[in-house]
Amino acid sequence: MKWERKDILGMKDLSVEEIHMILDTAESFLEVSARDIKKVPTLRGKTIINFFVEASTRTRTSFEIAGKRLSADTINISASASSLVKGETLADTARNLEAMNPDVIVIRHSCAGAPHMLAGLVRQSIINAGDGAHEHPSQALLDMMTIRNRKGGLSGLNVTIVGDIAHSRVARSNIYGLNKMGVCVTVAGPATMIPRDIQQLGVKVCFSLEEAILDADVIMMLRIQTEREQQNIFPSLREYSTFYCLNRENIKKAKKDVLVMHPGPVNRGVEISPEIADGVHSVILEQVTNGVAVRMALLYLLTGASS
Amino acid sequence: MKWERKDILGMKDLSVEEIHMILDTAESFLEVSARDIKKVPTLRGKTIINFFVEASTRTRTSFEIAGKRLSADTINISASASSLVKGETLADTARNLEAMNPDVIVIRHSCAGAPHMLAGLVRQSIINAGDGAHEHPSQALLDMMTIRNRKGGLSGLNVTIVGDIAHSRVARSNIYGLNKMGVCVTVAGPATMIPRDIQQLGVKVCFSLEEAILDADVIMMLRIQTEREQQNIFPSLREYSTFYCLNRENIKKAKKDVLVMHPGPVNRGVEISPEIADGVHSVILEQVTNGVAVRMALLYLLTGASS
Amino acid sequence: MKWERKDILGMKDLSVEEIHMILDTAESFLEVSARDIKKVPTLRGKTIINFFVEASTRTRTSFEIAGKRLSADTINISASASSLVKGETLADTARNLEAMNPDVIVIRHSCAGAPHMLAGLVRQSIINAGDGAHEHPSQALLDMMTIRNRKGGLSGLNVTIVGDIAHSRVARSNIYGLNKMGVCVTVAGPATMIPRDIQQLGVKVCFSLEEAILDADVIMMLRIQTEREQQNIFPSLREYSTFYCLNRENIKKAKKDVLVMHPGPVNRGVEISPEIADGVHSVILEQVTNGVAVRMALLYLLTGASS
Repeated sequence: MKWERKDILGMKDLSVEEIHMILDTAESFLEVSARDIKKVPTLRGKTIINFFVEASTRTRTSFEIAGKRLSADTINISASASSLVKGETLADTARNLEAMNPDVIVIRHSCAGAPHMLAGLVRQSIINAGDGAHEHPSQALLDMMTIRNRKGGLSGLNVTIVGDIAHSRVARSNIYGLNKMGVCVTVAGPATMIPRDIQQLGVKVCFSLEEAILDADVIMMLRIQTEREQQNIFPSLREYSTFYCLNRENIKKAKKDVLVMHPGPVNRGVEISPEIADGVHSVILEQVTNGVAVRMALLYLLTGASS
Repeated sequence: MKWERKDILGMKDLSVEEIHMILDTAESFLEVSARDIKKVPTLRGKTIINFFVEASTRTRTSFEIAGKRLSADTINISASASSLVKGETLADTARNLEAMNPDVIVIRHSCAGAPHMLAGLVRQSIINAGDGAHEHPSQALLDMMTIRNRKGGLSGLNVTIVGDIAHSRVARSNIYGLNKMGVCVTVAGPATMIPRDIQQLGVKVCFSLEEAILDADVIMMLRIQTEREQQNIFPSLREYSTFYCLNRENIKKAKKDVLVMHPGPVNRGVEISPEIADGVHSVILEQVTNGVAVRMALLYLLTGASS
Repeated sequence: MKWERKDILGMKDLSVEEIHMILDTAESFLEVSARDIKKVPTLRGKTIINFFVEASTRTRTSFEIAGKRLSADTINISASASSLVKGETLADTARNLEAMNPDVIVIRHSCAGAPHMLAGLVRQSIINAGDGAHEHPSQALLDMMTIRNRKGGLSGLNVTIVGDIAHSRVARSNIYGLNKMGVCVTVAGPATMIPRDIQQLGVKVCFSLEEAILDADVIMMLRIQTEREQQNIFPSLREYSTFYCLNRENIKKAKKDVLVMHPGPVNRGVEISPEIADGVHSVILEQVTNGVAVRMALLYLLTGASS
C-alpha cells in the first residue's frame, strides 16, 4: 500500500488500512530507537512548523522531538507570539506560513475545525494536534499503538473511556478509531459529561464506573480540567472523584490484566489514585514513548519520505 | 564585487551595488529552492541569535527558517524572557551575547537606533529586524526583490506608499532604498500621518488616495496599527478606511498591471479590501516567500560565506 | 580517569578529580573554538531538554549554544508553557520527559532540591542549572575555570564573595567548590545577608567590604535582586551600594592584579561601579565565554561521549 493522504485531520477520516500503516510505521521507529539509533536522516531538509495557538508543552515537545529524530528542522510558533493577536485572520496566517514553504504544519487550536480550514487553504500537509473538543488523532493513534502492542491486537477488545466525554477530543478520536478496528467501546461519567446522542457513535453508555469497567481490557481515564471547575459544568471535584476515581478497589471489576491509560497530565487522586497511576496496570508512560514514535510515523508518511 | 559591510542597519547606508548584490544573491537562493533543494550546508557551524525585544512572529520565523535552510544553528531570545527585565542595560546584554560567540545577531527593538548601538559595541554582524519607527531594511529589500522580479527592474517605476508614513519603518526603509534605485516614490495618507519634512527625503506627498495612485506601477499599503487607535493619533478606523482603503473602484486609477503589496499582517477591510488582497494584482504572499530568500542572502553575505 | 557520575547536582558532591576533569575538558573545547572550529559532531543524535521552570535567558542560552556546538538537538521547555500549570506534579512531568527518551535534562527550578528529586526518578542525566537558593554548579565551574585560567591554578588563592550570601546559590556552589580546591574564601555583606552558620562551611566572614577584599586575588560580586527589595529583606539599595559597591577607591585594598567577577546580570552602580565593570580587572565577559565551554564539557562527560 502507498500512502496517499495529504493531511491528518481526524480519526473519522482514516481508513483501517491507513491506521494499520501508521501503527506499523510507528512500531518500526520504536524498534530502531530501541537499538539506540536515535536519529535518522530521513527528513533532512524538511521543515516542520509547530503552530500551537492553544498552549501544550506535552504535545508540542513530542512533535518537536519526533521531527528532530528524523533530522527535520522544527519551528515553534506559539499563541501569544503569533500575528493573530494583531488582528490577522487565521486564513491569512496560514497562507503566510504556506508562503515560507514548510513541509508540514502541525496545528493545535481551541476552535474545532481550524485544522480542516487550513488543510483546504494551503498546499502543505496539516496535522491536527487537537482542535477544541473535536479531535486529537495523534493521541488516539498512540493510544491504539499502546493497546495493540500490549494486547497483540485490537479487534474484540473491551475499552472503557471514563470522564468528561462531552468535552474530550481524546474520547472522540478514540471512539472513531477504536470502532473502526473492531473494539467494543463503553463510555462512563456523570450524566452532565455524557452527550445525549453519543450512542449514535456506536458506544455503550454507563453512569456507574464499576459497571462500565466490568470485563474491560483497557480503561482510559480522561483528564478532568480543573481550571474549568468554577464554570459549574460538572459536579465538584470531590464528588467526581468519589464516584469516578479509579482505585485499588473498583479496578477489581475489570479483567486481571486490564491496562490503565491516561492522556496526561494526570490529576492524582481525581481521575486515578496514585497507586493505580504507578501500578502494574498503568501504561501511561508507554503512551508517552509511543507518542513520539506515532508522530515520527505521521511526519514520515505525510512528507512522502516513504515513497 | 566582494561584500565588505559588517552590519545591515538600514537602507540609508547601503549602496546601489550592495543592494543589487543582496537581491541577486536572494534570487539565486530562490532558484535553488525552486529546484526543491531546500537546505544547503553553507552556514554549517554558524550560530544566529534572533534577539527580539519587540515581539514579531512573522519576521522571527522568516529569519529562523532562513538560518536553518543554510544549516546554521538558530537561537531565539524573546523580550519577556531576556535579562533586560532584570534591569540589565541593553549594552550589557549585547556584550553578553557577544561573549557567547554567535556569528550574527538579528535584533528587533522598539527603540530607534538600538541595532546601531549594538553594531558599535560587538564584533559580530548585526541585522536590524526593525527598530522603532526608524528602519526595517530586510522588509524593504524583500519588497524591492518582489518589484524587480515582477517588473524586470526598478528604475523609472512609480511606487506609491499609503498609510501611517510617520510611524512606519517599512515606509522609511523603502523610501531610502527605492530612491537610490531610481524609483519615483509618492506617499499618501491623512495629514496626521504624514511627517511635515518628508519631502526632504525626495518623495511626492498626496492626501488623496486616488491622486496618489494615478499611474502607479506599485502600491504599498502599510498596516494600520489598530492597537494604537485609542491613543487618537489618527482618524477613526472607519474614517481611515473610507478614504484610504484600496478597493475594486479606486485601484482603477493605477496602471492596469499595478502590483499591490502589504508587509502584513493585513487588516482586511481597513487598508485593503478582501477582493484586492486576494486578487490578481496582489503579490503579498510572494513578498513572504521572497522574505526568506532575502534573509538567507543577508546571513550568507554577512558571515563571509561568499568569500 | 573515567567519568562515572550520572548527574551534576551540586559542587558539594563533586570530587577534586571530577572538577579537574570538567575544567580540563572545558579548556579543550575552548581551544577548539579558538581555532574557529565552532561545531563538533560529538553529540549528534543526542537530545538535550532545557527544562526551565524558573526563567533565565542567560543560562538557557548558554546551555542551548553548548548543546548545538556539540551537534545535539535541544528542546526548550519553559515554566509558563509547562504542564505544571495544569496541576501536574513535578515528578509526573519528569517521568513524562523521561518517557520521551532525551539524553540529558537541564533543570532550573525555584525550589531547592528539585534537580535531586528528578535525578532519583529518571534514568537520564540531570544537570542542576540553579535550584532556589541552593546550588548552581555550572556557574561555580565556569567561575573556577576563569580563575584557574587567569591565575594558573586555584590552590592558595584568596577569593572574596560579596553580596546577599544567604540567598545566593552562586555563593554556595562556589564556596563548596573553591574550598575543595584549596582556596581561602571570605564572604562579605550586611549582617542581614550573611547566614549565621556560614562559618561552618569553612569561610571567613566580614561585614566590611574594604576589610574583606584586603589581599584578595579574586572578588566575586553577587547580583542584588532588586525585584526583591520591597520585601525588606535587606537594606535599601542606596544603603547597600554606599557600603558594598565595588569602585575605583575601595578596590585598591585588593591585590594589584585582582580579578573582578560577576555572574550577571549586573546592576551597574549597585554592586559594582561602571568603571570597574568595564575596567582591566573585570573578567565578567570571559566568564560568559567560559560558561559555554563548561556546559559543553558537562554535556560531553554526562552523555558518555568521552568513553
